[in-house]
Order: sequence, then C-alpha cells, then structure tokens
Amino acid sequence: MKTSSEIKVYVALIHHPVINKKREIITSAVTGLDLHDISRVSKTYGIKAVYIITPLADQRILVERLLNHWLTGAGATYNPIRSEALELVKVMASHEDAAADIHSIENISPVTVATCAGYKGKGLGYDQFRRMAAKGDPYLLTFGTAWGLPEGFIEQSDYVLDPIKGITGYNHLSVRSAASIIIDRILGAEYR
Amino acid sequence: MKTSSEIKVYVALIHHPVINKKREIITSAVTGLDLHDISRVSKTYGIKAVYIITPLADQRILVERLLNHWLTGAGATYNPIRSEALELVKVMASHEDAAADIHSIENISPVTVATCAGYKGKGLGYDQFRRMAAKGDPYLLTFGTAWGLPEGFIEQSDYVLDPIKGITGYNHLSVRSAASIIIDRILGAEYR
Repeated sequence: MKTSSEIKVYVALIHHPVINKKREIITSAVTGLDLHDISRVSKTYGIKAVYIITPLADQRILVERLLNHWLTGAGATYNPIRSEALELVKVMASHEDAAADIHSIENISPVTVATCAGYKGKGLGYDQFRRMAAKGDPYLLTFGTAWGLPEGFIEQSDYVLDPIKGITGYNHLSVRSAASIIIDRILGAEYR
Repeated sequence: MKTSSEIKVYVALIHHPVINKKREIITSAVTGLDLHDISRVSKTYGIKAVYIITPLADQRILVERLLNHWLTGAGATYNPIRSEALELVKVMASHEDAAADIHSIENISPVTVATCAGYKGKGLGYDQFRRMAAKGDPYLLTFGTAWGLPEGFIEQSDYVLDPIKGITGYNHLSVRSAASIIIDRILGAEYR
C-alpha cells in the first residue's frame, strides 16, 4: 500500500452548477462551516487540496477574507489547528480551473469523480476507488452543495461514486457528512 | 445480521461537561448545524434518538424552538426532509437523563460508549462495536462538542471507542464529521 505522500486525491466543493429542490440549476452561497469541516477532514486523510468553486467574484473574496483571518489574522493565533487545515483551501471560479490547477501541479489531468446521492447508474465502488487512488494518479473528487450536482455535470465526469447507503432509505446527508464519510471510506487507515 | 429495527443505538451530543482548549470543563453553546447534520446522519443509519444534552434551560428552550420551526412551523412545509430527521432529537439536561429515557423505552439501561479523539487506552474497535450493536442491546454513543468529553466522563463510560485514525497524524475533526464517520463505520450497510 502506498503512503499518504503518494496518494493524490483532490477535493472540490461546487457552488455552481448545483441544483435546488426543484432541480433547477442555481449558484449556492458559500457556507463557512463547510470550509472548516471539509478542510479538517481533508487534512486528516491527506487530501492534497480543497477547491472551493464559485463563479461569483464577491463570494470568492468572502472566502479569501475568511482564509486570511484564519491563516494570517487573529484566527491563526487563536486556533492554529484551524489554519493548518484551511491551508489546503484554494478558491476557484470553476471546476475546469481546479482541474487545470491540478494539471499544473501534477503534469497530468486528474481523473474526475463526481458524487451524487441519487445516482442510479453503474457507480464506482469504494473499494475500487481506494485501490485506484493507491496507485498514485491524481483524482479530483467533487461534491455539490445545495441539492447536489446537476445531471449534465455528472455525465461529464470520468466516474460517479456509488451513493452512500444507510439502512433506512433516508438519503439526505449534509455535504459535510457525505464528504466526511466518503473520504474516510476511500482513505481511512483502518480499511487498509 | 439483524435488520435496522433490531439495532438500538442512541446518540448523545454533550454540551456539558466538555473541555475547552485549556482542558477546563465548560458548557458549550448549542450549534444549529450540529442538530441538522447529526440528526440527518442518524436518520440515514437507523439511530433510535439523538439526545441534545445541555444543563442550561435557556439553551434547551432555544433547541425546542428550532425543533418546533422545523417540525410544525414554516420549516416543516418548506423542507419536510429536515423534519423527518429532526423528529429523532430529544433535548435533555444531562447524560443521566438520556440514559434514564432509554431505560424507560427499552426496559434496560443502555451500555454507554464514549468517543474521544485523543484516547490512549484500550479502545473498543469498530468491528467489535458493530457486532455488539447487531445483537440488539441498547447502546448510548456519546460525542462531546467543543474540545471533547472530559477524562472523568470518559472513565465512567462502559466503553471508549477507538479514535478515528486518518493518515497524516492531524486529529481535529469537527464533531459533525466525527459523528458521521463513526456512525457510518458502525452501521453502514456496505460493511455487513
């Protein structure tokens, strides 16, 4: 099994395009707690970077301000543990920009893996993704905020991860919970 | 393997006693998003109830108001999916009250299982807890907010769950992430 330095999984949290409960394509607002929770779980499991994706320039500025507070401002002194995790965060206008950034780092385009709670097609299993990731190729694992990623986006991904199955049929985890569970399943040391 | 109706795992989210970063015992404030995230993951995995524990009466009133909004107020119409999950939530003044409530439901006291990110003792493994829970006895699985549960509380629990190990040594998940990962590991259908 490869060590964490050889695993190149990147995470993207998408605010556009995502769908609302009427399945219309919208741009959601960035939620501060998503950044904290998802960067902390990413830091725990050796994710290379967390891309916060929004086409709205004012939202990107807001995220940069939040990052500055925790990385260099009062927050860095108050709670250095948060800065350590938020160092992983990069703010980008689009999923394509995130993929291009990974290409510039790894000299190869990432394999894209979308997540979708209601996916009915043939999904990528967690064991399979774990074995693929362990080989060291770069992957961009994408989560949608609001009601999730639109069908058109999902169809363009190289893979779609199997939905998380609970035991009750209820299938509405927060993106923070879903990202935590999925990252644990793919990279958790206990499964190796 | 038992079906979900036979698994009797209850969850408690503690706001007192918990510790701050100086390891002093404090009472933390209830966070709305904890209720949403933890009740949704609990609903997904067939947890019997989610106890929100705080000795502060005004905080308990606050939680009851939030629950009323989502269960019977405007929120119930706007987003019934949230009400379905929040129906699991019960507000209690202490961990003992939660255990007594479970006793009144199950006619037997629950086995208590604490969680602690920094636990150095002999912990309960995830596989072992999964097998124990599948036998159908009631368990009360407890999470601390803020910097976690105090040592004195942990020592009084019947079991302490193994800490979640990532792959980087960074060990500071949010309680929302930790609860999601732990509940998935114990009750996820994929591990059966």
